[in-house]
Amino acid sequence: MINVGIVGGTGYTGVELLRLLSRHGGVKIKAVTSRKEAGMPVADMFPSLRGCVDVAFSSPDDSDLKKCDVVFFATPHGVAMAQARELLEAGVKVIDLAADFRLKDPAEFQKWYAMEHTCTDLLAEAVYGLPEVNRDAIRKARLIGMAGCYPTSVQLGFKPLLEGGKKLIETDTLIADCKSGVSGAGRKAEVGTLFAEAGDNFKAYGVKGHRHSPEMVQGLTAIHGAPVHLTFVPHLTPLIRGIHSTLYARILPQARDTDFQKLFEECFANEPFVDVMPAGATPETRSVRGSNYARIAVHRPGNGDLLIILVVEDNLVKGASGQAVQVMNLMFDLPEQQGLEIVPLLP
Amino acid sequence: MINVGIVGGTGYTGVELLRLLSRHGGVKIKAVTSRKEAGMPVADMFPSLRGCVDVAFSSPDDSDLKKCDVVFFATPHGVAMAQARELLEAGVKVIDLAADFRLKDPAEFQKWYAMEHTCTDLLAEAVYGLPEVNRDAIRKARLIGMAGCYPTSVQLGFKPLLEGGKKLIETDTLIADCKSGVSGAGRKAEVGTLFAEAGDNFKAYGVKGHRHSPEMVQGLTAIHGAPVHLTFVPHLTPLIRGIHSTLYARILPQARDTDFQKLFEECFANEPFVDVMPAGATPETRSVRGSNYARIAVHRPGNGDLLIILVVEDNLVKGASGQAVQVMNLMFDLPEQQGLEIVPLLP
Amino acid sequence: MINVGIVGGTGYTGVELLRLLSRHGGVKIKAVTSRKEAGMPVADMFPSLRGCVDVAFSSPDDSDLKKCDVVFFATPHGVAMAQARELLEAGVKVIDLAADFRLKDPAEFQKWYAMEHTCTDLLAEAVYGLPEVNRDAIRKARLIGMAGCYPTSVQLGFKPLLEGGKKLIETDTLIADCKSGVSGAGRKAEVGTLFAEAGDNFKAYGVKGHRHSPEMVQGLTAIHGAPVHLTFVPHLTPLIRGIHSTLYARILPQARDTDFQKLFEECFANEPFVDVMPAGATPETRSVRGSNYARIAVHRPGNGDLLIILVVEDNLVKGASGQAVQVMNLMFDLPEQQGLEIVPLLP
Amino acid sequence: MINVGIVGGTGYTGVELLRLLSRHGGVKIKAVTSRKEAGMPVADMFPSLRGCVDVAFSSPDDSDLKKCDVVFFATPHGVAMAQARELLEAGVKVIDLAADFRLKDPAEFQKWYAMEHTCTDLLAEAVYGLPEVNRDAIRKARLIGMAGCYPTSVQLGFKPLLEGGKKLIETDTLIADCKSGVSGAGRKAEVGTLFAEAGDNFKAYGVKGHRHSPEMVQGLTAIHGAPVHLTFVPHLTPLIRGIHSTLYARILPQARDTDFQKLFEECFANEPFVDVMPAGATPETRSVRGSNYARIAVHRPGNGDLLIILVVEDNLVKGASGQAVQVMNLMFDLPEQQGLEIVPLLP
Repeated sequence: MINVGIVGGTGYTGVELLRLLSRHGGVKIKAVTSRKEAGMPVADMFPSLRGCVDVAFSSPDDSDLKKCDVVFFATPHGVAMAQARELLEAGVKVIDLAADFRLKDPAEFQKWYAMEHTCTDLLAEAVYGLPEVNRDAIRKARLIGMAGCYPTSVQLGFKPLLEGGKKLIETDTLIADCKSGVSGAGRKAEVGTLFAEAGDNFKAYGVKGHRHSPEMVQGLTAIHGAPVHLTFVPHLTPLIRGIHSTLYARILPQARDTDFQKLFEECFANEPFVDVMPAGATPETRSVRGSNYARIAVHRPGNGDLLIILVVEDNLVKGASGQAVQVMNLMFDLPEQQGLEIVPLLP
Repeated sequence: MINVGIVGGTGYTGVELLRLLSRHGGVKIKAVTSRKEAGMPVADMFPSLRGCVDVAFSSPDDSDLKKCDVVFFATPHGVAMAQARELLEAGVKVIDLAADFRLKDPAEFQKWYAMEHTCTDLLAEAVYGLPEVNRDAIRKARLIGMAGCYPTSVQLGFKPLLEGGKKLIETDTLIADCKSGVSGAGRKAEVGTLFAEAGDNFKAYGVKGHRHSPEMVQGLTAIHGAPVHLTFVPHLTPLIRGIHSTLYARILPQARDTDFQKLFEECFANEPFVDVMPAGATPETRSVRGSNYARIAVHRPGNGDLLIILVVEDNLVKGASGQAVQVMNLMFDLPEQQGLEIVPLLP
Repeated sequence: MINVGIVGGTGYTGVELLRLLSRHGGVKIKAVTSRKEAGMPVADMFPSLRGCVDVAFSSPDDSDLKKCDVVFFATPHGVAMAQARELLEAGVKVIDLAADFRLKDPAEFQKWYAMEHTCTDLLAEAVYGLPEVNRDAIRKARLIGMAGCYPTSVQLGFKPLLEGGKKLIETDTLIADCKSGVSGAGRKAEVGTLFAEAGDNFKAYGVKGHRHSPEMVQGLTAIHGAPVHLTFVPHLTPLIRGIHSTLYARILPQARDTDFQKLFEECFANEPFVDVMPAGATPETRSVRGSNYARIAVHRPGNGDLLIILVVEDNLVKGASGQAVQVMNLMFDLPEQQGLEIVPLLP
Repeated sequence: MINVGIVGGTGYTGVELLRLLSRHGGVKIKAVTSRKEAGMPVADMFPSLRGCVDVAFSSPDDSDLKKCDVVFFATPHGVAMAQARELLEAGVKVIDLAADFRLKDPAEFQKWYAMEHTCTDLLAEAVYGLPEVNRDAIRKARLIGMAGCYPTSVQLGFKPLLEGGKKLIETDTLIADCKSGVSGAGRKAEVGTLFAEAGDNFKAYGVKGHRHSPEMVQGLTAIHGAPVHLTFVPHLTPLIRGIHSTLYARILPQARDTDFQKLFEECFANEPFVDVMPAGATPETRSVRGSNYARIAVHRPGNGDLLIILVVEDNLVKGASGQAVQVMNLMFDLPEQQGLEIVPLLP
């Protein structure tokens, strides 16, 4: 059994990790920390876990984190950065679900997250947690910066078109028009995500610039092996869970005979969590609710030169905690699907 | 034109007052105060008001409140209590949408609102703002404590059965099973009313005791002229607006031949904002959305001895700001319906 | 492995059976019938099942139902009644999720479901599918009429107070004020349950009389061993899944010293799927979303003579398909919790 | 007073016309037809209209439509086409909210609506009902084909960039990524728009081709005076009302110095119902809920060569019935805003 610790168990990615890990079968939850709630049984805060999780929150100061085999950070940005070194030196592997180890350039990190990066050596070592792109590196890593929710969907959607320097689409006119459920904003007291504000309402936000934009560009550039330019427009939609990314790419003249459906199917043929839908399909967010799947459909209206890729994922599972468990499985040589064989909840 | 001031224009009752008053025709909005947002045009915070309301928030300190004819307090509990005297002394009428002037007993106020009542003389003078119960007193009042949202629906529903000491129902076994939309909790940053918490979720709360309980008992007792006992169970439902109260009362043996449908119709025959539905109807909250109507239906299953009264209202209109405008109309001898002839928004 | 058939796999209880059975581990799904969709892979209609369920709908006429060990009817009322005999005679056990085998009195069935009961001998034999009440009989049964969604919650909530003729509460003034999510109305094309009708809306319905009322009275009477009278008011709430029942009972004078919290805890101490919450709790529907749990809380405001019991369940799981799997486990001597150890999905 | 008739008053555009016209002040509702509901008071079907609308549905056969000054068709496609001639010949003006008179090319109509156009002479005469584009023609028209909901938002958003042959953007790479509330699908019994299907769910649809696509292309081509090519991807979002269109256009090299904010502000400076938001704004659908406004924001991230235009409208008001009333006002020389000065409902 792998001993697991979770730093910051009171947010949505924390409770989602607990949901998944409590039925994983190969792990033992040793510690769930919360400075504010120390002493309170986790299931008192989240009654959905009554009978499933029997640990109490512990203070980060006297917890058993260093005795764990792996520690997940389900915390605000900046926390993992401050605590990772001590854990790594104690031989504990670290998986950060926040942004501390995503952007390779410390200046970019500082620009978008408004804080200095305090351990740039670890940042250099950290592996980006997106198994469909980075599986081998993840297996060998001791420190992971998990991919963000939007970036996961966008990178999966563009990967077959860009990987290995392929010349199939224009790489300077990419558009990602993305729609997210409200849980993506986290479990924190804010007016903008109140039910009476976000309910029965739809809006774009962050059009001028969003933190996930540089992460997407970094990831797509790495996949392609050359620079790409992307316009990213996120929207808030009255869903609890779910991301729907509508991606637009212009087909290059020399690539017009490509069978894009086949290209996508072959690219993800061996991926346990990426489902390429039949031609013509329009995936729904609820078709992945509560599960680690991403579903993708490829459209080319009128057989023209614009390709439309539709990607759905559950932002808290494949976009966060589920993918983190998938990464943990890889790091500890467990079956990649262990604990993640959950049928989506529909309706 | 009546000059109107609003203290606390950034919450839901405040923006709702602005929606209604901006199309009232008989008032001029002189001041909308917000210490925090002073200087910002109101329509910048609430773009729904662009082109309809052109004032900016002003600081409470240098606002023109004393030059107004009437000031509405759409503030947290405790604010009106601190500022009402000065306004009244300047000849300004005061309508408080919070709870400062609802409970006649200062000890009860302190018990439920956890603060001492600092102007008990004004409390004694204040008139309870529920026109269907108190119309004449309202006309003559200079200080109003508006009825709460739940209490409005519960008092309207029980009024025909209790008024004037009628002996129709048991008065010690009343039950009010009430369901409210989330806007009832106000526009403040709190985890419990986030979209991802309150969405697709239903729960009871405050079963042990809720602030509106003593207000209901006080009101029903006044209507009846004798003590009543009520059990009140509020529930939070994933609606933005709307209250649905399901009321239960046991018919007294001597009252079993009463035509309750007729009783209700006659009781409210001249009320512009209370609609008694045909026998057998089940009113929907959306049938009053955005309007000042309450709709009521009376049921007596199997012609037995239990009476079920269904009441719907929009908690922000008849349950708060609309009723406050209705009260203002009465206080200034305007047509009671002025500014309130809004057709509900369906769907 | 138990061979399982499902008649009527295109509704919500059908797809929910498939979600649960596909991860059960002890069953093989042999046939899922749908006259209209015969030939279509089930996962084409419900993409959430892609990769999890690989059967196609078969015609009821040439399906392998008779080769199954057990057949679930997830059909409209009246279908199971017409087909059960043939299956039973072929040695197949039958679990009906509709109402054909719920009401013991054929006249009552005809009154509420507007069709004659065509196999009253089987009706007499059928066992009511509510394990917490009827576990031993279920184990030995070959034909089950599953409890309805509302009746499950109401019977669980009143059971500790009524079972075995206990004299704790008045049995002629019981009230069940119940609120259901919209999936309870089934997956059929109807105006009243459209998103634009049922969304942001709350209403009571069926106040004059609802089909689940006689089922509740029959069940509670059986539990108590003497007649009870119940007033049932169902409400439609903008939830996808979930039932919240608020139950009211008057404590008898001689029972006022009862420790009701303890009574409930002891009653359900060994029940794997009934969770009695700590005193003072208010269970949320989302705390059981997607799971087979019911959670119950007992309240007695002001230590008075009114008891309030709050019960939540997922209407499609404990209220339908999950409970049917629980019943199947009992009938085939499998661990009662097999396939049902699902952590609720929150948020 | 203008005498008004409505054919098809049982759908969402019908009830919305009734909401608006009942408070218009310059019209009298003479007839609301419904073959199926003839005789039933309109307010029995839509209790939101109780006390506001007191007509009953009449049969189309013996209604007073020919005595009206104007008749609105709030019907399925094909109905207006069959009845318009008789009304026009009787001197009645006709405003069709369906698609019968939108597409100028009968072959296109047949292709997208799967029925032959049976009065092509009237089609040639009909004026497209989009005041911001066609105001003068509308004033003089006797037959209007109202703009569709999506096409209204898309044409308003692109108009400043295309009108009069302007060379500001590439006209062959336009993208409209649009999101609609569920009421856009109408008030008809269908599985796909049930609450339990469309709730907490997001998906694209009609990616291969949508009926509004040829209408948009026809309209934009007319605005521009030269052909344009547009990719349109509609999405269904769990809103009751509201459309959010996210439009993408590539700026031509010679137009890079354009002040696009100013361009939009000047284009709509005199429009009573189009609100150009300040630079940087992201309009919300709820900011126009229940009102006839469209709000537009222009973005140019990083001052690059991609322009993003955000447009919100209420699909049932500016996208349908409100715009139809605006058109009626123009046709009868009434103030354009009469009956439409409604403050949006927020929250």
